[in-house]
Amino acid sequence: MNQALALAGTTISRRVLLSALAGLPVLIGQARSGLAQAQGDQLPSWNDGQTKRSIVEFVTRVTTQGGPDYVAPAERVAAFDNDGTLWVEQPMYVQLAFVLDRVKALAPANPGWTTQQPFKAVLDGDLRALAESGEKGLMQLVAVTHAGMTSEEFATIATDWLASARHPRFKRPYTELVYQPMLELLAYLRANGFKTFIVSGGGVEFMRPWTDRVYGIPPEQVVGSSIKTQYEMRRGLPIIFRLPEINFIDDGAGKPVGINQQIGRRPIAAFGNSDGDLEMLQWTTMSGGVRFGLIVHHTDGEREYAYDRQSHFGKLDKALDAAAVDRWTVVDMKRDWKKIFAFEG
Amino acid sequence: MNQALALAGTTISRRVLLSALAGLPVLIGQARSGLAQAQGDQLPSWNDGQTKRSIVEFVTRVTTQGGPDYVAPAERVAAFDNDGTLWVEQPMYVQLAFVLDRVKALAPANPGWTTQQPFKAVLDGDLRALAESGEKGLMQLVAVTHAGMTSEEFATIATDWLASARHPRFKRPYTELVYQPMLELLAYLRANGFKTFIVSGGGVEFMRPWTDRVYGIPPEQVVGSSIKTQYEMRRGLPIIFRLPEINFIDDGAGKPVGINQQIGRRPIAAFGNSDGDLEMLQWTTMSGGVRFGLIVHHTDGEREYAYDRQSHFGKLDKALDAAAVDRWTVVDMKRDWKKIFAFEG
Repeated sequence: MNQALALAGTTISRRVLLSALAGLPVLIGQARSGLAQAQGDQLPSWNDGQTKRSIVEFVTRVTTQGGPDYVAPAERVAAFDNDGTLWVEQPMYVQLAFVLDRVKALAPANPGWTTQQPFKAVLDGDLRALAESGEKGLMQLVAVTHAGMTSEEFATIATDWLASARHPRFKRPYTELVYQPMLELLAYLRANGFKTFIVSGGGVEFMRPWTDRVYGIPPEQVVGSSIKTQYEMRRGLPIIFRLPEINFIDDGAGKPVGINQQIGRRPIAAFGNSDGDLEMLQWTTMSGGVRFGLIVHHTDGEREYAYDRQSHFGKLDKALDAAAVDRWTVVDMKRDWKKIFAFEG
Repeated sequence: MNQALALAGTTISRRVLLSALAGLPVLIGQARSGLAQAQGDQLPSWNDGQTKRSIVEFVTRVTTQGGPDYVAPAERVAAFDNDGTLWVEQPMYVQLAFVLDRVKALAPANPGWTTQQPFKAVLDGDLRALAESGEKGLMQLVAVTHAGMTSEEFATIATDWLASARHPRFKRPYTELVYQPMLELLAYLRANGFKTFIVSGGGVEFMRPWTDRVYGIPPEQVVGSSIKTQYEMRRGLPIIFRLPEINFIDDGAGKPVGINQQIGRRPIAAFGNSDGDLEMLQWTTMSGGVRFGLIVHHTDGEREYAYDRQSHFGKLDKALDAAAVDRWTVVDMKRDWKKIFAFEG
């Protein structure tokens, strides 16, 4: 929390942060057990009301054979943002917590870091100084935490971290801090012939090791930011080596580009929670047919967090205005979600 | 044919060609009707022998539950090169034929081209002069044929072209010039729980509009080369605009990189026909478990084409040597394939 507050006052832009966080993998998670497969209500953690109704109506329309809005199963592509849409992004992006922890873990082998920025700032917990190191500083942190190893090694590092790291407020593994209503929504869509994709500003290799276990979304259905990689033969064995250079930032206008590049189909439904999802929502919904856009609005400071227009993580401002104009569904977490996390009551 | 011969004598490297061809889409094809779903032999166009046996043995081993080599269905990723592996690449890459035809189609609206290289060379059919225009010339051709329109417009252009273009020797649409034994192999693998992907040096947007229809491979399972794109709002509607700049070359060492980037899993089987597939085959097969690598060797000049170490399209030299060392299966088209195209007797 304190770290987040410190960062919130800094000059580090979301884009710089995302650049810094591009790349990665992990492994963990068991929240999938909460998936709804009830014969009756497939969205039991959603309160009855207009929000839930809008979801069911959309799915009914595009799956009704012979109906005017029918969409063939192959075209039922649904794109989900991750941070703040499927799991918690406060007090900071999970991947940023990973970066900070990882620098600390590597510090003993790098004694010079105690006097060298931006590493000193991380080790001192001085995020204001870290912010002052700017984009260059963050790229140095990415270089030492996300690059300089094979993809497989990175997956192991991230996996091990996720297995042991705990959220500062909830004291639980991050993979338990996924939204139960969204897990139900993912399952509901798949049960109706949708193919569900993650389209996240987070690093694609940070997500892939655990998205199948946690969300039921396999690696090939995860689109994300990335650093450059290189194929090499090393000691007679082929590897993919991770380089300290940004390859692609899957955020904002990058999201439709990333979707087009990797999926090659235009989604018919998109789910986000911040201005970084604006273009994905536009591209998905402004195509003529019956389409669905949804924004998760974080309104529950008691059970989770309440933030929108002023937040430095998951800022929701332009996209909230656009939601009214473009008739996207806005989830009021406090009102619409009976339960936020599977571990509640 | 003459064009190919002309090009074969030039200084244009495969990489330059691929760079020049990156990007694109199309639509057409009906060859999928030939897919084998026989209860008995699922590979009827393959002659009995060691080649066919090696395929069946591999599939049996990795799908035998409880066996030492069992691989879970989710991990059964199979990667297929396209040009020369699934369809004809002689007398030139299909996408290059598209480029040349497209320049001719655009010429009336660009009268200056009759005196301006590299366009003049294309219009005169002077591929030696085209080659002399080098990488810069080819990039100019890419710019006018592959960029400067939306992704959807490009898909339509490529689709229309494929619907009308005919192969110079076989006088048939290119989408009929797919190898019947490979279609059977794709279907056989899918029937055994494999997810089949294309991993091609060709432009990803040139392939996606027709791969599902022709190969049963949906757009999201096509990895290829690409040009940069940009998201824009134009007249109130969101578009993906194609830019005249290379984004990624999915060839050689780029293939494992592209697979890792887009699929995020290491294949357990890979199928290619040229040196551009070498690294993909290495990365797939040199990972410890029971893996499968296959090279299509073009040995049938009568029914198709015979070429390998000296060819400028689909050169097979290093990968043929590696096949012996790494025990990849080498298909002798003349000996192993009962039928090459579905339209044969």
